[in-house]
Amino acid sequence: MAQASKHGAPERERKFLVKKLPANLSKFKQEQIEQGYLAIPKSNGRSNEIRIRHVGGEYVLTVKRDRGEARNETEVPIPAASARSLWPLTAGARVRKVRYKMPYEGLKIELDVYAGRLRGLAVAEVEFPSAAAMKKFHPPDWFGKEVTGNDAYSNSTLASSGKNPKAR
Amino acid sequence: MAQASKHGAPERERKFLVKKLPANLSKFKQEQIEQGYLAIPKSNGRSNEIRIRHVGGEYVLTVKRDRGEARNETEVPIPAASARSLWPLTAGARVRKVRYKMPYEGLKIELDVYAGRLRGLAVAEVEFPSAAAMKKFHPPDWFGKEVTGNDAYSNSTLASSGKNPKAR
Repeated sequence: MAQASKHGAPERERKFLVKKLPANLSKFKQEQIEQGYLAIPKSNGRSNEIRIRHVGGEYVLTVKRDRGEARNETEVPIPAASARSLWPLTAGARVRKVRYKMPYEGLKIELDVYAGRLRGLAVAEVEFPSAAAMKKFHPPDWFGKEVTGNDAYSNSTLASSGKNPKAR
Repeated sequence: MAQASKHGAPERERKFLVKKLPANLSKFKQEQIEQGYLAIPKSNGRSNEIRIRHVGGEYVLTVKRDRGEARNETEVPIPAASARSLWPLTAGARVRKVRYKMPYEGLKIELDVYAGRLRGLAVAEVEFPSAAAMKKFHPPDWFGKEVTGNDAYSNSTLASSGKNPKAR
């Protein structure tokens, strides 16, 4: 996951489907992530997307504005008891996944392997230090189709549909 | 304000405009309240309304579902630092008010006197222990028109419009 608190820093990310999971996954750092949405804006809304994420025994509240390649997000810690009280309100809008963090050519790949209703789906995200680095990126051979900005693969859409878009 | 944490308890409230502020206001307990909205659902949305409230040096995050006389709300404390990081995201959707808590015939009136852009607006809310008590309520003579369920007087609408509906 991103740092515990990013105050309005724009994200430079590209997102790809995964053709085949790498064979050596177990050697990378992994996190169990569970997240649920309190608010998912309509595509034409000016509302924020708001989620609770549970990872590594910590809870964070994340507020995201806008969509696409560059979006702002603010992430703050909240007490476990507060998060647990809010959790029931995310019913029907949750995802569980294992995140693998893999270094790649000086960059960092975050590979999300979904569980539960979304089992079978894996998505890789790459964060870039600059717009130039983002453009010149050469994906590893296990990456599939690019889905950057494709709302069908946003976590909020996956959470509320509960369906792997590929399997539709 | 309501208790620090209400887990899905339905609210039984009626809301009234105020014809004239009571003369003896200063003798009642008062709170300075500042609140900002992170998410305001469209009237036809299934999203939650989510706000941060700052009162008495504490910060709470409140999530409300549904609208009208009976709605569920969950309120949880969040750390001051987290609330301050989220606050900029509520720009353009805030209200400030002084809340007076006044006992009345075994009930509790909460009188909100708005400040800032909404100066001149005052709204009184009464909470009831039962549906029967709610129906048989006789308002004090300083109460004006009932606006229960009137979305124009919801805090989220006031916050995003910044206008006193009477003054339109």
